[in-house]
Amino acid sequence: MRNLGNICVLFIFIWAPASLAAAQSQPVDLIVSDGMIVTMDANRTVLHDGSIAIRGDSIVAVGPRSEIDSKYHGAHTIDAHGKLIVPGFVNGHTHVPMTLFRGLHDDVTLNDWLYKYIFPAEKKNVNEDFVRWGTRLAAAEQIRYGVTTFADMYYFEEAIAEETKAAGLRGVVGETFIDFPTPDNKNLDDMLAYSERFIRKWQGDPLIHAAVAPHSMYTCSQKTLQAAAALARKYHAPILIHVAEMKKEWDDSEKAHGMSPVAYLNSIGVLGPDVVAAHCIYVDTADEKILAQKQVGCVHNPSSNMMLASGVSPVPQMRAAGVAVGLGTDGPAGSNNDLDLMEEMDLAAKLAKITQMNPLALNAKAVVEMATIDGARALHMEKEIGSLEPGKKADLDVISLDEPNAVPMYDVYAQLAYALKGDDVETVIIGGKTVMRDRKLLTIDEPRVLEKAREYGKSVSASLGMEQ
Amino acid sequence: MRNLGNICVLFIFIWAPASLAAAQSQPVDLIVSDGMIVTMDANRTVLHDGSIAIRGDSIVAVGPRSEIDSKYHGAHTIDAHGKLIVPGFVNGHTHVPMTLFRGLHDDVTLNDWLYKYIFPAEKKNVNEDFVRWGTRLAAAEQIRYGVTTFADMYYFEEAIAEETKAAGLRGVVGETFIDFPTPDNKNLDDMLAYSERFIRKWQGDPLIHAAVAPHSMYTCSQKTLQAAAALARKYHAPILIHVAEMKKEWDDSEKAHGMSPVAYLNSIGVLGPDVVAAHCIYVDTADEKILAQKQVGCVHNPSSNMMLASGVSPVPQMRAAGVAVGLGTDGPAGSNNDLDLMEEMDLAAKLAKITQMNPLALNAKAVVEMATIDGARALHMEKEIGSLEPGKKADLDVISLDEPNAVPMYDVYAQLAYALKGDDVETVIIGGKTVMRDRKLLTIDEPRVLEKAREYGKSVSASLGMEQ
Repeated sequence: MRNLGNICVLFIFIWAPASLAAAQSQPVDLIVSDGMIVTMDANRTVLHDGSIAIRGDSIVAVGPRSEIDSKYHGAHTIDAHGKLIVPGFVNGHTHVPMTLFRGLHDDVTLNDWLYKYIFPAEKKNVNEDFVRWGTRLAAAEQIRYGVTTFADMYYFEEAIAEETKAAGLRGVVGETFIDFPTPDNKNLDDMLAYSERFIRKWQGDPLIHAAVAPHSMYTCSQKTLQAAAALARKYHAPILIHVAEMKKEWDDSEKAHGMSPVAYLNSIGVLGPDVVAAHCIYVDTADEKILAQKQVGCVHNPSSNMMLASGVSPVPQMRAAGVAVGLGTDGPAGSNNDLDLMEEMDLAAKLAKITQMNPLALNAKAVVEMATIDGARALHMEKEIGSLEPGKKADLDVISLDEPNAVPMYDVYAQLAYALKGDDVETVIIGGKTVMRDRKLLTIDEPRVLEKAREYGKSVSASLGMEQ
Repeated sequence: MRNLGNICVLFIFIWAPASLAAAQSQPVDLIVSDGMIVTMDANRTVLHDGSIAIRGDSIVAVGPRSEIDSKYHGAHTIDAHGKLIVPGFVNGHTHVPMTLFRGLHDDVTLNDWLYKYIFPAEKKNVNEDFVRWGTRLAAAEQIRYGVTTFADMYYFEEAIAEETKAAGLRGVVGETFIDFPTPDNKNLDDMLAYSERFIRKWQGDPLIHAAVAPHSMYTCSQKTLQAAAALARKYHAPILIHVAEMKKEWDDSEKAHGMSPVAYLNSIGVLGPDVVAAHCIYVDTADEKILAQKQVGCVHNPSSNMMLASGVSPVPQMRAAGVAVGLGTDGPAGSNNDLDLMEEMDLAAKLAKITQMNPLALNAKAVVEMATIDGARALHMEKEIGSLEPGKKADLDVISLDEPNAVPMYDVYAQLAYALKGDDVETVIIGGKTVMRDRKLLTIDEPRVLEKAREYGKSVSASLGMEQ
């Protein structure tokens, strides 16, 4: 017994400093350590040897590595030495299941594309299974490209929500309201009932924000638009809608209502601080003021707008008017054809410069803002995501700088906007959970998803009488 | 001895069919086997299970796998099952050492960029060592992105030629003529003497085409332009020149000469079937006819033209007029900022569509042509490269289709133009030599090149009094 007593004394003696240190150092679940952190906080702080402490799904602290090391000890650590750490990208507008129609008849007019190809293809192919596999494929692609949050409008949105959650992605997902029968709902009453069930089911979910998605003013009557908005507001759900994407939409609105699409949507009470308006191409100065006053979030989709020759959104002017403008890929069929948000950053800057014939029109920092914090503002989620700050969700990307296109680096924003690529994203963390590590997807059976996508390619081709 | 005799008989019996087969099957050095081959031949043939037989630096045969297997046996084989095989991409206009200035002050006017940043940066930093490391970095980046031939205009072009050949890349490399002292030549006489030595040294080289590169009509006098052209023609060397890139160039030309830049260059005898004209933005219908008649190759640089807000080249009109139009990245500083030619394909199509407000303006197949066979035509090398056909150089890329952004595939040209990325290139062969295999560079010490590029980043920053 005496010997045992001595051992106990020894143990206490040895462990005392350690337990003292433990008392000072707080446990966290994960530390992403020693990278160059582009915080996108209000001061646009960039830390050169920074670490991030994460507990549960949230960020506890962001600071110099030495400071984080002295205050926290992580159950796990990801070494980001020599790499960039940025807020996960926000894809503000897409239709994820359309990945399975990727590249199905490009280079045609929007009218031909819709009526000759996409509507028949959707009618013949879109069901819940299609939507699940398309969402899985899009999840794999978005995670690879560092997208951690996306906003989606499609059909069978319940399945999209489930697959999004299973992949560990954050999604604002809205079932489409449209004035013709969809693959899953016959009429407005069905759409309302579906969406109400859908919203109630996902209330309080940490990853899924169920939304209401009236397609547009040219496919929805005033009644549909107002009913959808009323349902959303009953549950404080966001409203996703296409706004002023086409010249015809502007012309028809002027003719039918004597006002612009934005003014019309405002006049019927649809616009508000819960609306996410995709495109916003045909907006004038008065419209910009309305969008700012009503705190509508706008999402710019440069690839889609160029591909379909829709027009160019006045992004610099909207930003100057105080509108939150994010970035989106749009659906990856006929209008992009991928989900690479880093490409949209590059394009947004270059498109604004050439359109305004001014190389200062929209700079690198602005488009990085649009892909992160302004994207979060456009989705009305800026308290939750969009920057790397204590209290926010731990949604972040670790980007390799060990690539020929990454060196040398004179300006981190220029590098992100113009030189780094989606494929340079190495590791992705969403809500504290690592969903890709060193380019390996951890939440998705990628080979199986690719195999199924190829099978769908064959069956879609066959359904349209195409050779493949 | 009787037993030995029996054994001999047995051997002869067993080996007879094999030696017979060997007599029918020809030896080649390499077979790239069983991929989907986008040949870009005159019929734009696409083979679904195709193989390519390569002997020395050239293609011996392209055909269905079974046919190639029966006719040839390769010392080496690369299995391309489930992958794309495309002609190596042609980057028709760049300044490779400027990789070391990547992202040095973007988002400024061209004038500020040149006079405040680039000219001082070049004066303080550009020497032969800088050019060598910049060329190595650019070679790594271009090979990674599937570029197998590039056209370059810079200084110390002798060093660029040596490093290009060492990396196994094909290059059309031209020493710059300009009416002020450059880092390596003081005046026109020096430039002429340098270029003559340079051209003579590289005559007959299988990879390096020494060129003459009078910078532009706004930086070179008529005397310089004509002297440079005469030297080139003495040796049948190509002439690389910036043409009609800026509105000011057009205005000044009209004022000084009463004609457009293209008409002026034609009037002084510079234009001909050996000229590669970069940009060609400010060209009218009459200019298009001149370019076609004189068989000038043009190189469109959409990233650069957008980034610097230079203007938009009338690519569809030039193509319709019969001009060979290739694609270029331009220099990777201030005007891009990378050497990813696949991005230029995507941009070229989207820029034409949005500029002409017509989604049919320039389609996927057209931009794949511009990156391959038309790029070769623009460099006047269409007999040597640009398509996968017997007799041409074995310059090709194997591209992975085992990525989320690659599936499903309805149209191979749409996939190449809009969905696949530079990083999807897996294996690159130039002149029969494998320079990248499964994303590993075989001719470049990549870690050392990246390290040196970072060092140059620091010294360039210090030379300009910038923090880094």
